[in-house]
Amino acid sequence: MGQGQPTAVPEPKYWHLRTVLLRTIDAEFSTGQVIPNERELSARFGVARATLRQALDQLEMEGRLVRRRGIGTLIAAPRVGIPVATPVGGPGESGPGAVSGLTWRTVDCVSAPASARLAAALGIPEGETVHTVRRLRLVQGQIMATESLHVPESAVPHLPAVPHVVGGAAEQDRAKSVLRQLERLGADGQSRSVELGVAEAEEAALLERPPGTPVLVVTTQYAAADRLVALAVSTYRADTCRLTFGETGKVEVTPVRAGAVRSAS
Amino acid sequence: MGQGQPTAVPEPKYWHLRTVLLRTIDAEFSTGQVIPNERELSARFGVARATLRQALDQLEMEGRLVRRRGIGTLIAAPRVGIPVATPVGGPGESGPGAVSGLTWRTVDCVSAPASARLAAALGIPEGETVHTVRRLRLVQGQIMATESLHVPESAVPHLPAVPHVVGGAAEQDRAKSVLRQLERLGADGQSRSVELGVAEAEEAALLERPPGTPVLVVTTQYAAADRLVALAVSTYRADTCRLTFGETGKVEVTPVRAGAVRSAS
Repeated sequence: MGQGQPTAVPEPKYWHLRTVLLRTIDAEFSTGQVIPNERELSARFGVARATLRQALDQLEMEGRLVRRRGIGTLIAAPRVGIPVATPVGGPGESGPGAVSGLTWRTVDCVSAPASARLAAALGIPEGETVHTVRRLRLVQGQIMATESLHVPESAVPHLPAVPHVVGGAAEQDRAKSVLRQLERLGADGQSRSVELGVAEAEEAALLERPPGTPVLVVTTQYAAADRLVALAVSTYRADTCRLTFGETGKVEVTPVRAGAVRSAS
Repeated sequence: MGQGQPTAVPEPKYWHLRTVLLRTIDAEFSTGQVIPNERELSARFGVARATLRQALDQLEMEGRLVRRRGIGTLIAAPRVGIPVATPVGGPGESGPGAVSGLTWRTVDCVSAPASARLAAALGIPEGETVHTVRRLRLVQGQIMATESLHVPESAVPHLPAVPHVVGGAAEQDRAKSVLRQLERLGADGQSRSVELGVAEAEEAALLERPPGTPVLVVTTQYAAADRLVALAVSTYRADTCRLTFGETGKVEVTPVRAGAVRSAS
């Protein structure tokens, strides 16, 4: 007060550096190019290595930079737009909203009594058997998401009885049976929600990322004949994925980085 | 190797503490309750204050905890489910997907030539005038999102000519005129994408959060008669919002925390 100082904005040092770095990157480098190493960058911007590393971590989390062992830090490719509304059984490689190279890989299929929380979410009695198919969603061979698809036994009663199947080809077959039955029911992903989450240890391992990696958690309820028949919880890598929704065909969601439009407006 | 030690998982200390804290919180406290202070917690869990603070920061970012000056750290309320597909002009307080207490507040309305990036996203020539309406989306008085709605002049040619309007009631009127014209055109939000972003300085100020706060960036293309008439870029607070999509009415997206289902499954 009365000292002629401008109002101080409570902006952390690393955050200011992140914004400066982002501007530099956008102006001087393009996708796939290696940026100068930490020593050079900290000299150029006159900052401590710790601050620089914090800013680089932030930009990696935002999907702007990628660190590759033995190569250095590269400008990341734009996020891949992934349509969330794909048929429950298939890869969604054709039809509207198709993504070339999109595939599923089954991890396992476990049948177990529903916990109180899962039962409430599925609208079934606690303890009813639920089949859970875990899958990975890949785009051109790169892991983009994990999915746990929970299907109450009562929704797919005609499943061939193969109790206590663990691992191997038999488990893959069982997963396929569950998915095929859901398709036959005409299961339709009717309502979805998206929220920010973090990859817990097991999910992180499946995504081949460290625990705590930010993910977009998509919850989808599948209904057939007005009855809830499945619940899918998917975790998408927030650094590499952009989720697309809504009617397709007419107007395509422009593959422009939202940030680019935001800063340009 | 040969030392009998278990395989070390590269899990940062604060991350382990975060998971332990989360389990404790879920078991011992409910929404709105104040948890013990930092001194007590660091003693109880035998960790350094810095590590504890990092874990608390993480849980605040995840929307599990809220810090209130003069009160302490509280268990946060569950995230608010917000339907993303609402009419362009209205608050979406009635009809399917309605949220009680959902309102919009206009911040400003600026008309300026489109940058190259914005022009490309809107499919118009660079330099064409674009009206940008900035709004806040509130639920029960709490700011949930900012929105920048970009409308090319050519899409709303019948706007009353009021050049160089800045601030005040005239600007609010102009924003209303733009929204009304879009409604008259029957503008329909046809395709959307969602990705993780961070609030830049200006957005952060509007959201009343520090810069760098994680946000869910929703990009919506509005079309009328198969022509793109508007582009909206919204930033939702990732700590307090859960976005809902898709057909409404038939099955309601269960307001169960995805994390809860994930950990329960």
